Amino acid sequence: MSLNETDINVIGIIGGGQLARMLALAGIPLGFKFVFLDTYAECPASALGKLIVGQYDDLEKLHQLADQADVLSFDFENVPATAINSIAQKVPFHPSPAALATAQDRLSEKTLFRALGIATPEFHNLEKTADLASAKEFTYPAILKTRRLGYDGKGQVRIRDFSELNEAWNELGRVDCLLEGFVDFDLEVSQVATRDQHGNIAFYPLTHNRHENGILVESIAPYSNAILQEKAQDCTRKVLKHFDYVGTLAIEYFVAGDNLIVNEMAPRVHNSGHWTIEGAVTSQFENHIRAITGLPLGAADAVGQVRMQNCIGEMPARSKSLTDKNAHYHDYGKSARPGRKVGHITYVKHS
Amino acid sequence: MSLNETDINVIGIIGGGQLARMLALAGIPLGFKFVFLDTYAECPASALGKLIVGQYDDLEKLHQLADQADVLSFDFENVPATAINSIAQKVPFHPSPAALATAQDRLSEKTLFRALGIATPEFHNLEKTADLASAKEFTYPAILKTRRLGYDGKGQVRIRDFSELNEAWNELGRVDCLLEGFVDFDLEVSQVATRDQHGNIAFYPLTHNRHENGILVESIAPYSNAILQEKAQDCTRKVLKHFDYVGTLAIEYFVAGDNLIVNEMAPRVHNSGHWTIEGAVTSQFENHIRAITGLPLGAADAVGQVRMQNCIGEMPARSKSLTDKNAHYHDYGKSARPGRKVGHITYVKHS
Repeated sequence: MSLNETDINVIGIIGGGQLARMLALAGIPLGFKFVFLDTYAECPASALGKLIVGQYDDLEKLHQLADQADVLSFDFENVPATAINSIAQKVPFHPSPAALATAQDRLSEKTLFRALGIATPEFHNLEKTADLASAKEFTYPAILKTRRLGYDGKGQVRIRDFSELNEAWNELGRVDCLLEGFVDFDLEVSQVATRDQHGNIAFYPLTHNRHENGILVESIAPYSNAILQEKAQDCTRKVLKHFDYVGTLAIEYFVAGDNLIVNEMAPRVHNSGHWTIEGAVTSQFENHIRAITGLPLGAADAVGQVRMQNCIGEMPARSKSLTDKNAHYHDYGKSARPGRKVGHITYVKHS
Repeated sequence: MSLNETDINVIGIIGGGQLARMLALAGIPLGFKFVFLDTYAECPASALGKLIVGQYDDLEKLHQLADQADVLSFDFENVPATAINSIAQKVPFHPSPAALATAQDRLSEKTLFRALGIATPEFHNLEKTADLASAKEFTYPAILKTRRLGYDGKGQVRIRDFSELNEAWNELGRVDCLLEGFVDFDLEVSQVATRDQHGNIAFYPLTHNRHENGILVESIAPYSNAILQEKAQDCTRKVLKHFDYVGTLAIEYFVAGDNLIVNEMAPRVHNSGHWTIEGAVTSQFENHIRAITGLPLGAADAVGQVRMQNCIGEMPARSKSLTDKNAHYHDYGKSARPGRKVGHITYVKHS
């Protein structure tokens, strides 16, 4: 469904976390108003629009959200696809529910990548009814990952050989899992891109990401490598086209020499694109808002060399962080908790 | 009163217009919450915090605002100084009420500039009880301006010679006025600067401003002229120091050759500094928030060549403005009305 901008005043977002907060900070200057659905009345986006408090799978609340919005999107991936399909009949929903459903299941995601000719690690499907023996011939070491609901390194166990698989699977609750082969990679990169309603794509430059304990700690952009940039754009373009995608998407890759092996995709704005707020002409958040409201995209070029550091567990003191005159401090308004992403700080060296 | 950052969570702003809106958009990422006092429930800042609806001189409402805030500032200049003094006893108020009171009266303002050795146009004070004849020897043509409550060219009449003065004064309601000499200037520039609680100053580069019918229509920055930049910084420094000023200030000048003649000052963030949102490392809004909350200032350098166009009367269509991939669209959420500033668009050419 194509949208005329005059139809759109209010944007509804499922989830009111930091992504919703930054979407609203980008969308309000464009003249939009926001309504969020979140389980928590003091969620990060709550200061930036109207909030409906409820569960993400509460159909009544989802319909309340849809009734107040002219277009819908989400900042939270684990909304049941059936719930989404019900409201997407009512109000335009971007990106497509199909992209969301695919990204919710590691098997669907990897199957799609393979179908599109995009290299993935080796994988083996281990459904809850499966016989463990089926994984005996897999190449170890490997990582056992829950097919659904994993994030920030949660729902993953490394295993050295087949003998450890049973215990690892028990640890993950014997839910549907994917066994993934180890990739001998040089570094991890991601690409964020936004596609508009006419099929135009704004590709952000590759970002070099550093993780600790499965959590992104630092992104450096642009990661300048013309060959890999081109390869990533080819992959991204295929995925976006496959879904007739509208909005911002991120794909994470392992780099091995001149090769890219896809790790996973996120059908939304992504932590590794937070540097674009000050570091790119148009941020991933603003371009997502522009895309879903039928507007033209802004330039995605970097404006210098950028480093984004996640604040994990708690925020450093503002007064200390801001002694660096080029620091941009982003506090998501969340309470401190070990391992939790509570903010980020971006440093831009203008070229 | 010096502030420890840990004391400050909520910032109170008198006025909820576009300046308050942009202050909040800059302050929310830093982790602050906002409360505004405005006469209009649907004011531009209303989406970004708590709103108290009331008149700016309603002492009860002002105290309500003060009770909910850890620090106070304003986006609206014409708040009676007596009202301000009453709440400034209770909660830190920046910039100082004295700066606000001085800027509210063209005579106090010009008298101060002269006392600080800053060149101003010739002027003659015409109080409501004054004899018109006192202005006979003034050099004409001149501009008769109300001493208080003027903005965007309102409260001003051009007069060619003494014979027109009586009628002009009648037109302005025979209130206290200042007769100002014409300045034969090459162009108009302004300087925005922010001073922190330790006396450090972040000077933005000079901005070249173009007005139509007394309303700013376009700002281009930086206006690169080392001599004038230095002269402006000297003036700005004197004014900031005089008030022990904390926050962002703007001073408008006429340029005549290598000379600066001050036009007026605004003890707040200023329209001619809106380009700093995307065009400077740290915006005038963020630096104001940092200053009043006791944080260090961010760099004020321009990141390229910037042009800011005001949207006057009504917003152009988003879809049309944003076909320029480098455009940044700012809709203040105000209804259309002839002569009203309803938004601005900024174009940055990164260096």
